[in-house]
Amino acid sequence: MVRKLRRLSKAIRKPHTKDFYHQPGDLPGTIIIDENAEAPMIFIIDYNETNFIRQQIEVPEECLNYLDAESVSWVDVLGLGNKDILQRLGKVFDLHPLVLEDVVNMAERPKIEDFEDQLLIIARMVIPKERTCGFYSEQVSLVLGKNYLLTVQEEPEHDCFEGVRARIDKGKGIIRKQGSDYLAYSLLDAIIDGFFPVLELYGERIEELEEEVIVKPTPQTLQQIHQVRRELLQLRRSIWPQRDAINTLIRDGNELISDEVRIYLRDCYDHAVQVMDMVETYRELVSGLMDVYLSAVSNKMNEIMKLLTVVSSIFIPLTFVAGIYGMNFNTEKSPYNMPELNWYWGYPLCLAFMGAIGLGLLFFFWRRGWLSNSATIKQD
Amino acid sequence: MVRKLRRLSKAIRKPHTKDFYHQPGDLPGTIIIDENAEAPMIFIIDYNETNFIRQQIEVPEECLNYLDAESVSWVDVLGLGNKDILQRLGKVFDLHPLVLEDVVNMAERPKIEDFEDQLLIIARMVIPKERTCGFYSEQVSLVLGKNYLLTVQEEPEHDCFEGVRARIDKGKGIIRKQGSDYLAYSLLDAIIDGFFPVLELYGERIEELEEEVIVKPTPQTLQQIHQVRRELLQLRRSIWPQRDAINTLIRDGNELISDEVRIYLRDCYDHAVQVMDMVETYRELVSGLMDVYLSAVSNKMNEIMKLLTVVSSIFIPLTFVAGIYGMNFNTEKSPYNMPELNWYWGYPLCLAFMGAIGLGLLFFFWRRGWLSNSATIKQD
Amino acid sequence: MVRKLRRLSKAIRKPHTKDFYHQPGDLPGTIIIDENAEAPMIFIIDYNETNFIRQQIEVPEECLNYLDAESVSWVDVLGLGNKDILQRLGKVFDLHPLVLEDVVNMAERPKIEDFEDQLLIIARMVIPKERTCGFYSEQVSLVLGKNYLLTVQEEPEHDCFEGVRARIDKGKGIIRKQGSDYLAYSLLDAIIDGFFPVLELYGERIEELEEEVIVKPTPQTLQQIHQVRRELLQLRRSIWPQRDAINTLIRDGNELISDEVRIYLRDCYDHAVQVMDMVETYRELVSGLMDVYLSAVSNKMNEIMKLLTVVSSIFIPLTFVAGIYGMNFNTEKSPYNMPELNWYWGYPLCLAFMGAIGLGLLFFFWRRGWLSNSATIKQD
Amino acid sequence: MVRKLRRLSKAIRKPHTKDFYHQPGDLPGTIIIDENAEAPMIFIIDYNETNFIRQQIEVPEECLNYLDAESVSWVDVLGLGNKDILQRLGKVFDLHPLVLEDVVNMAERPKIEDFEDQLLIIARMVIPKERTCGFYSEQVSLVLGKNYLLTVQEEPEHDCFEGVRARIDKGKGIIRKQGSDYLAYSLLDAIIDGFFPVLELYGERIEELEEEVIVKPTPQTLQQIHQVRRELLQLRRSIWPQRDAINTLIRDGNELISDEVRIYLRDCYDHAVQVMDMVETYRELVSGLMDVYLSAVSNKMNEIMKLLTVVSSIFIPLTFVAGIYGMNFNTEKSPYNMPELNWYWGYPLCLAFMGAIGLGLLFFFWRRGWLSNSATIKQD
Amino acid sequence: MVRKLRRLSKAIRKPHTKDFYHQPGDLPGTIIIDENAEAPMIFIIDYNETNFIRQQIEVPEECLNYLDAESVSWVDVLGLGNKDILQRLGKVFDLHPLVLEDVVNMAERPKIEDFEDQLLIIARMVIPKERTCGFYSEQVSLVLGKNYLLTVQEEPEHDCFEGVRARIDKGKGIIRKQGSDYLAYSLLDAIIDGFFPVLELYGERIEELEEEVIVKPTPQTLQQIHQVRRELLQLRRSIWPQRDAINTLIRDGNELISDEVRIYLRDCYDHAVQVMDMVETYRELVSGLMDVYLSAVSNKMNEIMKLLTVVSSIFIPLTFVAGIYGMNFNTEKSPYNMPELNWYWGYPLCLAFMGAIGLGLLFFFWRRGWLSNSATIKQD
Repeated sequence: MVRKLRRLSKAIRKPHTKDFYHQPGDLPGTIIIDENAEAPMIFIIDYNETNFIRQQIEVPEECLNYLDAESVSWVDVLGLGNKDILQRLGKVFDLHPLVLEDVVNMAERPKIEDFEDQLLIIARMVIPKERTCGFYSEQVSLVLGKNYLLTVQEEPEHDCFEGVRARIDKGKGIIRKQGSDYLAYSLLDAIIDGFFPVLELYGERIEELEEEVIVKPTPQTLQQIHQVRRELLQLRRSIWPQRDAINTLIRDGNELISDEVRIYLRDCYDHAVQVMDMVETYRELVSGLMDVYLSAVSNKMNEIMKLLTVVSSIFIPLTFVAGIYGMNFNTEKSPYNMPELNWYWGYPLCLAFMGAIGLGLLFFFWRRGWLSNSATIKQD
Repeated sequence: MVRKLRRLSKAIRKPHTKDFYHQPGDLPGTIIIDENAEAPMIFIIDYNETNFIRQQIEVPEECLNYLDAESVSWVDVLGLGNKDILQRLGKVFDLHPLVLEDVVNMAERPKIEDFEDQLLIIARMVIPKERTCGFYSEQVSLVLGKNYLLTVQEEPEHDCFEGVRARIDKGKGIIRKQGSDYLAYSLLDAIIDGFFPVLELYGERIEELEEEVIVKPTPQTLQQIHQVRRELLQLRRSIWPQRDAINTLIRDGNELISDEVRIYLRDCYDHAVQVMDMVETYRELVSGLMDVYLSAVSNKMNEIMKLLTVVSSIFIPLTFVAGIYGMNFNTEKSPYNMPELNWYWGYPLCLAFMGAIGLGLLFFFWRRGWLSNSATIKQD
Repeated sequence: MVRKLRRLSKAIRKPHTKDFYHQPGDLPGTIIIDENAEAPMIFIIDYNETNFIRQQIEVPEECLNYLDAESVSWVDVLGLGNKDILQRLGKVFDLHPLVLEDVVNMAERPKIEDFEDQLLIIARMVIPKERTCGFYSEQVSLVLGKNYLLTVQEEPEHDCFEGVRARIDKGKGIIRKQGSDYLAYSLLDAIIDGFFPVLELYGERIEELEEEVIVKPTPQTLQQIHQVRRELLQLRRSIWPQRDAINTLIRDGNELISDEVRIYLRDCYDHAVQVMDMVETYRELVSGLMDVYLSAVSNKMNEIMKLLTVVSSIFIPLTFVAGIYGMNFNTEKSPYNMPELNWYWGYPLCLAFMGAIGLGLLFFFWRRGWLSNSATIKQD
Repeated sequence: MVRKLRRLSKAIRKPHTKDFYHQPGDLPGTIIIDENAEAPMIFIIDYNETNFIRQQIEVPEECLNYLDAESVSWVDVLGLGNKDILQRLGKVFDLHPLVLEDVVNMAERPKIEDFEDQLLIIARMVIPKERTCGFYSEQVSLVLGKNYLLTVQEEPEHDCFEGVRARIDKGKGIIRKQGSDYLAYSLLDAIIDGFFPVLELYGERIEELEEEVIVKPTPQTLQQIHQVRRELLQLRRSIWPQRDAINTLIRDGNELISDEVRIYLRDCYDHAVQVMDMVETYRELVSGLMDVYLSAVSNKMNEIMKLLTVVSSIFIPLTFVAGIYGMNFNTEKSPYNMPELNWYWGYPLCLAFMGAIGLGLLFFFWRRGWLSNSATIKQD
Repeated sequence: MVRKLRRLSKAIRKPHTKDFYHQPGDLPGTIIIDENAEAPMIFIIDYNETNFIRQQIEVPEECLNYLDAESVSWVDVLGLGNKDILQRLGKVFDLHPLVLEDVVNMAERPKIEDFEDQLLIIARMVIPKERTCGFYSEQVSLVLGKNYLLTVQEEPEHDCFEGVRARIDKGKGIIRKQGSDYLAYSLLDAIIDGFFPVLELYGERIEELEEEVIVKPTPQTLQQIHQVRRELLQLRRSIWPQRDAINTLIRDGNELISDEVRIYLRDCYDHAVQVMDMVETYRELVSGLMDVYLSAVSNKMNEIMKLLTVVSSIFIPLTFVAGIYGMNFNTEKSPYNMPELNWYWGYPLCLAFMGAIGLGLLFFFWRRGWLSNSATIKQD
């Protein structure tokens, strides 16, 4: 089980602790491709108030057909497995070498980078896992231009943009009437809102652990508490810089973002703050849980020790009494040598004496409340 | 009992961990109605220095009769169960879609949002529960306009505005002479002051726990400490942003708030700071209590171990002595084989010897102070 | 004892947890009088460089005789038990309703409030208790006007202003040559300096606890550590906002405070910072003490367990050996059935064997250092 | 082993705790040479877009041939063992006495110092050790001038600049087209990127400790957790001021740094922040590990106590029963004196009775779950 | 030993907790003289580029001969035992009453106070004790004027200014060419550099404690950890405000400090930051040590319990078996009554059975790893 959890957690952490740095001294702007990553798929969604095109394209240069038009073009790249295609993409969109490096490097910290006529937004998306309590964490890079938006996702399997795609498709809301900045906002909003279902899972898990930790603390509980703590730490590392990035976006007067969209971003910022609030609250709860765990384990030990003490304290004196009368003093040599052994009522008296001792001690422990099983919390 | 507490705490947390987010990618401004919530009731209080009207209205459009007049109109919406009515309300008051979303979303963080001629204030109201130590937490949204105030409450059952309603009704104080900004201040002040009775309950509960934890720590105590910690965390999450919101209200020169009301808001801000101070103090106390609990449990264990050690250390050697004289060496074969068994004073001497050992050990333990029951604190 | 401590601590906390809030929704400026509080006594000290008057007055309106004059008038109100007198005072000094509320509310946070021609300073004074380690905490409100100073104290029994009164009386220093601002400074300085004797008491108490915790930790020690922590928390809550208030006084260019007095206030601010420094240091020490306590209790448990283990490990095997020779195998049926019992040297050999085992184990424990009593720290 | 670890850690800490301060009252600018340090080697790399020279020089004055030229000159000094050479270097580069002191003092905090036409950058480089988890920490001083860069390294053995040297040599990227500021950036970037491999090692080590701490906590684990904590503390002390220094470099408009290089420095700053993020995350994980360790040790103790209690609780009562029938009451004197001893089924009944007790207790413990070995976590 | 440590620590703390406050309400500027303090000695060093005078003077008024001259005059007052001389000094240097109070009060917080043509610097000097790990802490007040510097030291025995005096005497460096501001800087630099040897001692002591805590934790270790924590707290309280004071000196454009000296002060500030860094690092290490201590004590307890459990679990069942055959069932009354006692191989079989049980249990414990002595860390 340990090993399974480890494998799991390695899978989660992999992008963070492996392959995510180029060698010290490397050329800045170096693109390092994970050879095992899947080849990128490129989708384009081009729309304005009246038209809507959605299709997969094969070569990056096809984008050029859409970029010049007045309509908003959303180029969505899924996967990062081919260096050549990425470099050609870089040329098509005229990306600064550092932008390309950041987009490809899959462990960047969320941030905003302002390059004159382009805005680079590095964000981190979390997607809840289906069975276990956990999440996939995936980097999304957004390059916002005049009337286009380039998004690059680490893995092609899942994202949280389906709702946005549907809104564009069906022309719901004002998205078709707005520019690429509103599209970027919509995606950011979807990313931030994607934290809530994950957090809800953790809220439930913490609740379960809270019950488990008091009712029946086991080493597995301990392990799970530590696991939750570690994953919340990771969530915090994702959301914290994201909040700062959105704040920068609102505050800095970049002309690619219209004032109207800025109002919407404020709402998005509020949600990011709310996510952070919840993460911090959960972290405090988990940190408190560890204290509760230690106390609960000590309580259990108290119960065990009580039982041992009760049993030992009752039977050890009794055994001593039995031992006395097991001694072989020669009763014939002296009237003082254990005359009890020859009494008519010797044995019954002895048993009665032992019974009295035992009951007396039981009464003593009962008065102290040691006989009630205080460690177990009855469930109604 | 655990289950009961859980159900309780779930009830408290429900608005925070469930249904409080729309799906990632949803249209911003989406209104999600909890189908089980009660249908909203709309009350209107319209007043100026001379007139006073208070009545329930059926359709939102009735408000329009009052909004245009010079008098202050307070539209109070209780409950959120009907999407249609809420959207019509939005139209009547000309609300920005994001405002409507925030008002309806019942897990927003307290905040101030400035929309040109309207001010949105999201606040959180706490109401102490009658029997147990706990509180209901409920969101109140205030939309402040030129001479109207729209308030939307999550649940219709209880609020802390009765005092304000009475003051308007009876014309006590200056409330009838002032505008809608003073009304908004009065409600905010009532909300903040509503934290004090809740905090007083926690103050008393912590005091009880402090006594319990030292005199008689049980696993239930542990559970309660954790429960209080969790609830204080929730209180902090409510009051912290509220304080910031009021500060923003004072600092930002919005023309909807008159200078005179700003002075009153400063007082309200001071109270919010005081609430926060108390919450933080209580949190530190509770956090210290957990340490005290662990130490007290260790103390109890020491007591248990002392008893076991005293009993074992006295009787195990004695049993050994009894065991010696229970051996069956043949006294006839040799004068060295336990001649004591045949002595005239053998048994009494043996008993005296054992008595001496026992008393000696008792004296040893008494000198070490192990026989006094130091764990119990006598109550005078 | 617990109960006594509780009553004590309740007495301390009373102003904080009871009667200190008006009902949510109450009219701002509402005056709530504790019916059991003593009726206020009003003293007036009126002085300039040449004259000095000090007398008790019966009705607030008498103040008017002094307020108009050029001399500095210090009106000192002790106790808060009569609503009518307080309201008449409010009229005499032309106080804003919020000022009156703050003055009467005995659990305000220390603060500065600037009302055009008046400055309201809410401060908190601590007075060490004579016998126990503890302090009375009392609110003092100062209303500074052009050439008067109104002070309102919660309780008439004790204050720390005697030194200032004596200086005015005897004309020591420059106080008679200065205005009401210097008088306000002198009182604030006396209040801040009043924290030092209290802190010195805590310094000594912590020192005692440090010794006690290592030499002889008892549950009472635990309780006292928690008590000191709680009281330091209260001290911090008193001094922190006081420091901020003085800082505001220095920084904000209110014309009621002359530049010369501002220099003196800087000194007063330094002392407030020093008080805070000490409180924080003491809090860290106390927090460390709790860790030391837990470790010391664990150490004691180790000692107890060691004794139990030494005694059990020595005597249980010996008892087993004795048990062996207590068995009743029939030595006559077989030469293999415990022939030792019939040996000539059987018993002495058996005793020697047991002695060897016992000494061997003692040697083993001695080499491990278990026999030295490491838990006790000798005092030279 | 302890001793070995200590020697190791001493080696790491040596520059920090020894020889790193001049005597109080010493002349500022005093150069203190560690007599055992190796004599400095001086290498010069001089390049522009077309030319490239790389050679070792013997005397500092040779540098002058290169400094005047338009090409970029990188003077790389390895080792600090000769005071005379260092002072001559100081003269050649016209260094302020404080600069020389900072460069030679091997325990400076990373910082930026602006001296009109020179920029002093003190940085700290970490290099992972090959076998153990640990790192060498070495100070690098960079003095940036108009078209030269002087770097002084503490130890000649290893640095992380090979990649940069190779890029200059082979003319990869834009480095040959840029000035000395880009060279300084490249080195700083290599230094910051050098933290990642070290952190990756710690990430793996923490993962191992996490498994070890739950599965099999030993005192060695404890020691290693503390060791990792201490080393992360050291890493934090290195990276924190480095980040601030880079930030200062970006913000302060020093004309030695071109705007283009400033963009690259922003990227370098992001990496520094990322390093700090990881260090803080690891520190929190390690701090949590200590709690887990303590809980795991308590769990183990519980297991031990359970075994003791099970064994004792079963056999002590049984031994008592055996003791009873070992008593020597004279069955002939009275029919009440242990008639069981003479029964036909006496012994089998007695054994059955004891068996019943033993099985009953076993059942009792089994129901309580004490017989399952909950402390061991099976590995699949 | 405890008492000795206490006396020691009292000696350290004395200036902090005793006599360091004047009574609340006292005249500001009151000078309180510790009657037991030694009478002040006054030394004067007067120098310029060519001349150098150093002598002890008897009456403060002699200073006037030097103050008017162009040369720099350093008046060094050692000890504070005579009120009259101090007041005359105040007159000679024209000190503000608050300056005199601060200079004489021996428990001021380090700070900078700007009085038009004078700068008051309160600093705190630490001097390592020779034998024990500890330090003397002494206040130094510097009053910087146009071409003079007045320094007042608490105790005459030791200071860390000898190096500066020697540099002035021998004309080393630029000190003779600079004004009184450079002199003040030199003294401040000597004070800050004086923290390093003290910190080095603590670094070594913590290292020793780290080894002790894991290899052989005793209650003395616990006490020492707490002692080091307390002393580091005191160091922090000394260095923190000192750093702020130096920062103020650099930032605020006081004309008594030349721009050139400001560059030197920046270096001094860097050192103060470095000291603080080290203090914080040490504090975190010590705080971690406490956790390690608690874990190590728990580990030791585990070892003790293991031994007890192994011994008990092996011998208690064996004793039970011996007890069985010690029972006195009458073998003659029934063939079922312990026929083993009469078997030919009865005793050897019984011993073999017990041996098998014992070895089986030993094997069980060995497999669980309980027999290896995991608590002891071998030293190579």
